[in-house]
Amino acid sequence: MLKFLTAGESHGKGLVGIIEGLPANLNIDIEFINNELKRRQKGYGRGKRMDIERDKIEIISGIRNGKTLGSPIAMIIKNRDWENWKEIMDVENIRLPKEKIVTRPRPGHGDLAGAIKYNHKDIRNILERASARETAMRVAVGSIAKQLLKAFDIEIYSHVIQIGKVKVETKNINKEQLEMADRSPVRVLDKQAENQIITEIDKTKEKGDTLGGLFEVVAYNVPIGLGSHVNWDRKLDGKIAQGMMSLQGVKGVEIGMGFESARRLGSEVHDEIYYENQYYRKTNNAGGIEAGISNGNNIIVKCAMKPIPSLGSPLNSVDMETKKAFEAQKERADVCAVPSASIVAEHILAWILANEITIKFGGDSISEMKDNYNRYIDYVNSR
Amino acid sequence: MLKFLTAGESHGKGLVGIIEGLPANLNIDIEFINNELKRRQKGYGRGKRMDIERDKIEIISGIRNGKTLGSPIAMIIKNRDWENWKEIMDVENIRLPKEKIVTRPRPGHGDLAGAIKYNHKDIRNILERASARETAMRVAVGSIAKQLLKAFDIEIYSHVIQIGKVKVETKNINKEQLEMADRSPVRVLDKQAENQIITEIDKTKEKGDTLGGLFEVVAYNVPIGLGSHVNWDRKLDGKIAQGMMSLQGVKGVEIGMGFESARRLGSEVHDEIYYENQYYRKTNNAGGIEAGISNGNNIIVKCAMKPIPSLGSPLNSVDMETKKAFEAQKERADVCAVPSASIVAEHILAWILANEITIKFGGDSISEMKDNYNRYIDYVNSR
Amino acid sequence: MLKFLTAGESHGKGLVGIIEGLPANLNIDIEFINNELKRRQKGYGRGKRMDIERDKIEIISGIRNGKTLGSPIAMIIKNRDWENWKEIMDVENIRLPKEKIVTRPRPGHGDLAGAIKYNHKDIRNILERASARETAMRVAVGSIAKQLLKAFDIEIYSHVIQIGKVKVETKNINKEQLEMADRSPVRVLDKQAENQIITEIDKTKEKGDTLGGLFEVVAYNVPIGLGSHVNWDRKLDGKIAQGMMSLQGVKGVEIGMGFESARRLGSEVHDEIYYENQYYRKTNNAGGIEAGISNGNNIIVKCAMKPIPSLGSPLNSVDMETKKAFEAQKERADVCAVPSASIVAEHILAWILANEITIKFGGDSISEMKDNYNRYIDYVNSR
Amino acid sequence: MLKFLTAGESHGKGLVGIIEGLPANLNIDIEFINNELKRRQKGYGRGKRMDIERDKIEIISGIRNGKTLGSPIAMIIKNRDWENWKEIMDVENIRLPKEKIVTRPRPGHGDLAGAIKYNHKDIRNILERASARETAMRVAVGSIAKQLLKAFDIEIYSHVIQIGKVKVETKNINKEQLEMADRSPVRVLDKQAENQIITEIDKTKEKGDTLGGLFEVVAYNVPIGLGSHVNWDRKLDGKIAQGMMSLQGVKGVEIGMGFESARRLGSEVHDEIYYENQYYRKTNNAGGIEAGISNGNNIIVKCAMKPIPSLGSPLNSVDMETKKAFEAQKERADVCAVPSASIVAEHILAWILANEITIKFGGDSISEMKDNYNRYIDYVNSR
Repeated sequence: MLKFLTAGESHGKGLVGIIEGLPANLNIDIEFINNELKRRQKGYGRGKRMDIERDKIEIISGIRNGKTLGSPIAMIIKNRDWENWKEIMDVENIRLPKEKIVTRPRPGHGDLAGAIKYNHKDIRNILERASARETAMRVAVGSIAKQLLKAFDIEIYSHVIQIGKVKVETKNINKEQLEMADRSPVRVLDKQAENQIITEIDKTKEKGDTLGGLFEVVAYNVPIGLGSHVNWDRKLDGKIAQGMMSLQGVKGVEIGMGFESARRLGSEVHDEIYYENQYYRKTNNAGGIEAGISNGNNIIVKCAMKPIPSLGSPLNSVDMETKKAFEAQKERADVCAVPSASIVAEHILAWILANEITIKFGGDSISEMKDNYNRYIDYVNSR
Repeated sequence: MLKFLTAGESHGKGLVGIIEGLPANLNIDIEFINNELKRRQKGYGRGKRMDIERDKIEIISGIRNGKTLGSPIAMIIKNRDWENWKEIMDVENIRLPKEKIVTRPRPGHGDLAGAIKYNHKDIRNILERASARETAMRVAVGSIAKQLLKAFDIEIYSHVIQIGKVKVETKNINKEQLEMADRSPVRVLDKQAENQIITEIDKTKEKGDTLGGLFEVVAYNVPIGLGSHVNWDRKLDGKIAQGMMSLQGVKGVEIGMGFESARRLGSEVHDEIYYENQYYRKTNNAGGIEAGISNGNNIIVKCAMKPIPSLGSPLNSVDMETKKAFEAQKERADVCAVPSASIVAEHILAWILANEITIKFGGDSISEMKDNYNRYIDYVNSR
Repeated sequence: MLKFLTAGESHGKGLVGIIEGLPANLNIDIEFINNELKRRQKGYGRGKRMDIERDKIEIISGIRNGKTLGSPIAMIIKNRDWENWKEIMDVENIRLPKEKIVTRPRPGHGDLAGAIKYNHKDIRNILERASARETAMRVAVGSIAKQLLKAFDIEIYSHVIQIGKVKVETKNINKEQLEMADRSPVRVLDKQAENQIITEIDKTKEKGDTLGGLFEVVAYNVPIGLGSHVNWDRKLDGKIAQGMMSLQGVKGVEIGMGFESARRLGSEVHDEIYYENQYYRKTNNAGGIEAGISNGNNIIVKCAMKPIPSLGSPLNSVDMETKKAFEAQKERADVCAVPSASIVAEHILAWILANEITIKFGGDSISEMKDNYNRYIDYVNSR
Repeated sequence: MLKFLTAGESHGKGLVGIIEGLPANLNIDIEFINNELKRRQKGYGRGKRMDIERDKIEIISGIRNGKTLGSPIAMIIKNRDWENWKEIMDVENIRLPKEKIVTRPRPGHGDLAGAIKYNHKDIRNILERASARETAMRVAVGSIAKQLLKAFDIEIYSHVIQIGKVKVETKNINKEQLEMADRSPVRVLDKQAENQIITEIDKTKEKGDTLGGLFEVVAYNVPIGLGSHVNWDRKLDGKIAQGMMSLQGVKGVEIGMGFESARRLGSEVHDEIYYENQYYRKTNNAGGIEAGISNGNNIIVKCAMKPIPSLGSPLNSVDMETKKAFEAQKERADVCAVPSASIVAEHILAWILANEITIKFGGDSISEMKDNYNRYIDYVNSR
């Protein structure tokens, strides 16, 4: 079983992550991780901060001579803007001037609930960790998971399928097309929709408003038999739903046909089973999961992301010190973070599948794990 | 922290559950549990088995003189139909006649994936546990959780908001109306929609087809501050999504405005903050959760359930022994289980909230826990 | 990874256990479980209750036709004395007569600390679960674990090596001798010591006093590589120490040479490494574990058990209601439970090793798991 | 519930730790942490490396203006010797010269078992993480835990009670004396024994041999009611045993009277209960824990540490590449690490108790947690 913990404030010294449980001797390509971090930072509609960040991973432990040791991997992404935040975020016990204390909660953020739960007067003590900045480390963690999955030929892609009211045509998308999503500044596979979306983002920015959207994540070549039906907390779809819903801004998750399947008749939904040398389906409405177990088809997940809560023209709120109404202050200038979220979601799925692979195939070195996998695949093909 | 495990096959001797971590001295009403079990068994569109079952809980441990001891609670729901299944499900090593072995996987079920994962020739070894029969014990577990929540005035309701293509009007539903949902055979709060749904179920049954739908679960009086933003696996919405997606047939989950929020502008989505003696909102599009923390508003969850996969006019499939095509056999005659699923979902949410209450307020007896809670509420009111 | 939960009061309806995570298709011999339960109940120096109990396991789920399904195994051991306790332990809310309420805590038991922690007036609410009666279910759980281990030729034995001040010679004990321990009423392998111990027990009984002792548990044929050095909570010796110390009455645990190794020079302690076709040692002072990893030698654990706290001539204590001094009441008439504890300890170790086997070798069916194991053993032999 | 993960190789860039679950607004004194790290590095009988290290903690996240945020705390201890190890420990995929590859496993270390388990040719890939260097981060983690405990007046001390064959008189040691242990270079409270031990260490060093020993850890002012009897994995003594046995070199753990209690009669072991305004005992043979629950007395743990396995005059072993016998190489020149281990053990116990405090009292800020604690203490005093 894999474990990870992350830490780090948005404007602190940096983000830290520790992963435990990976097999030894797995090849790790550091540049691949940096490239995934870069993919997260792109996207039309992001604000200025993305330029400052240029995230880079620093490996502290667990990897030697390009390979995992089997011991925990510790990683840091330093905050390149730290110099400007050193005083305000100081670890030492200094007294901050009153005007530096954030007392105005922003609707749609965890500011109000977090400040009350943790008994903070300064909302910064919440917003720094609640920020989606944290997802940079989740991408780093997922980039390691992706490299484990690669050893089993499992690949994960994503694309944006709606921003605001602009829908993207998504029928018959194949892997080759999905590989192209990064070429679009909004990660959509339909040139016309792309143009409409960019226009929509520009228009929304002018209004001082923000946009949400939908994205889809697809995992290819997932073996039959990950997850389990035996108890609720071992179901693969449940684990995926938790992972995705834990992504900042996500308010809805569906697997395969999802909400649409609720409107259809049974005969229109379930994927009939055929056999020719191996079992196959002509449809994949189940999104690759039946009874909480991967069924050998691609795993397909769609997520709904609400618009960014930090608006240019802010919303009504109440100062927590004075209890007086004010208009919420804005912290960032992003209009739309859906393309970036789709990248993070790839890494969330990568982590979940890597963990399942580890549980099912055991082993402490990548060769042991792959031997176990290969024989299982032989067995599957014999059924 | 609470823990539970359940066990039991659909046609085995019974279902068993163990709960650990409840405070001592909590009053437990056994009849309340039995009534919740009964609520799960009702619903227009269910097959004959519901009549046989008449589930009844038997408490084996952890409760004495009507109160929790603090020790684990073990519960059994005996299968009243066991006599008819004794041989086929025998624990002892007997040899079953070949015709009793299930080799034909049903599309939409875990039959194929499960039989391969666990290396079973007899699909019954999978379907018995994958069956939604298991949710009876989840309801029993949740009925204990509900009784803990009651000590904190937290109440949970549900209703069905769509079956097949028939939508139910859901605007401005209040708690008093939700209490009425049980009076409807399909658990909807709109008489006209109820009639349409019943007609739809009858029609679909004649066709040998099945129906899915949507339901909504609402938790009232949840205190601000359950869950946490600090790491992904402590987010309340993530935990709820996992719980709901682990329910048989659920393919989509949304919190608050959910997928609709992806289409809206930020200014239309986020719930502005006001203050008059206490903080309040005029809207609840967030569904009571911001940044993974409960914000004091009602928690609102919607789920999409696919149609039941066991059809009267079955789908194409392949016999796992002969590899020959056949039409999938049917196991049950339910047309629609959405009303029943909505009841189970109440109990899933109850469990998750009870667990959060236990984590936040600590304590080993209900009086200690409530003292901690009461003072926290005083503090919240002082902010 | 394996999980289990147990439940049940000493004089309640029965004990319940659920195990999750076992591979499918493992042969389960029910009589083997019953025999292990019987072994726990024997031992010179036990009181009358052992005669009443005659524990028998009832399997409710997870096993069909003599084989595991892969789904959770639920088990019950009914309390044969339940009729006599029905009223006093009633689940329903009845009012007990005052004289039935236990208010006098026994030194050495959890009575005082438990009653305060859980806010109970009636100490019975604590002592019923704190009782070593609970270990009957741990033996049942361990008997399933032993059957998994058997598939990997791992065997676990135990014997008593000291009772009170009488020490048993333990040098050069081999597996064949350990198999004989059950023939001794006090589970010792030295006839002379056996006689002395029996005399000691009789004498102590007359005095109304009790005895503790030491026992040793040995696991044979454990493969190299269980546990891990990478973090504290994955170390095999740490897990074993937790398991053993959690056994009622155990106050000390040592691995291999244990406390004696603290007195010796390094050159006298560490097991030198040799090679002839495979690596081997001439000594096993490490008790089969180095750096938290099994090293291929037998795993050897010794535990110290304090005397039973329920004395015939009771100790001073204070009534929790009146605060007046009294002599503690006695609950049972056992003089010495060390032989019984050694049996339970076998099953604790069996569980821990079964869990490690499951983590290392993965797999969802016993054939998949064994294939993975066999190839790993081939690899080990090639190093 | 608290969580932590650590990472880091002995000669890598540094050690990293992440702690999650602490309440907000707890005062953290960084210098206290550094001082605890210094305490770990002292002790007569340590080699040269201790001079190089001079460990210093760097806080990356989770603490701001001297207080915890409630978000995860990330910490780093940089390796001051990193420049000399940069090439040999390089993260990048370089090719090491053959003579830099460690192929000779040291008896008593995890070298052989680890290299086989993780399929490493270079034993350095194991020894770097198995090294007790890792305990520096455990001390840092424990130093945070100690600061939480301080808010509840819980204090933890340790002293060495035996090195090799030299025993230290330990009767009637009180807290004031324990505070003095740091003044002794071998952390003993008996001047005569101190001199004998120093002589013993010098003599053993000349012989090229090593020494183990015993140490005792005591926690003061632990409230009644931590841990639980309800299931094996919630017992406080079990958790302590796991923590201690996971410390490098520890082969035995006992609580209170420990192994000695196995030799005594019941009437000599159990701590009688008295009352005068509150419950008290005249003895503490139980070491503060009955039935897995703290009983209000001091918690007393003793551990046996084997001699350091890296000897000056090395032991016989076999080269894993050539399979030829050789004398094991030595990695370090410490003769005795018992004083240092006793410091680490304080921090292990601190962590376990901090976790229990968090579970029992809940709360998300230190004021909430303390309010809950204070009222519980009032309640305890009323029983």
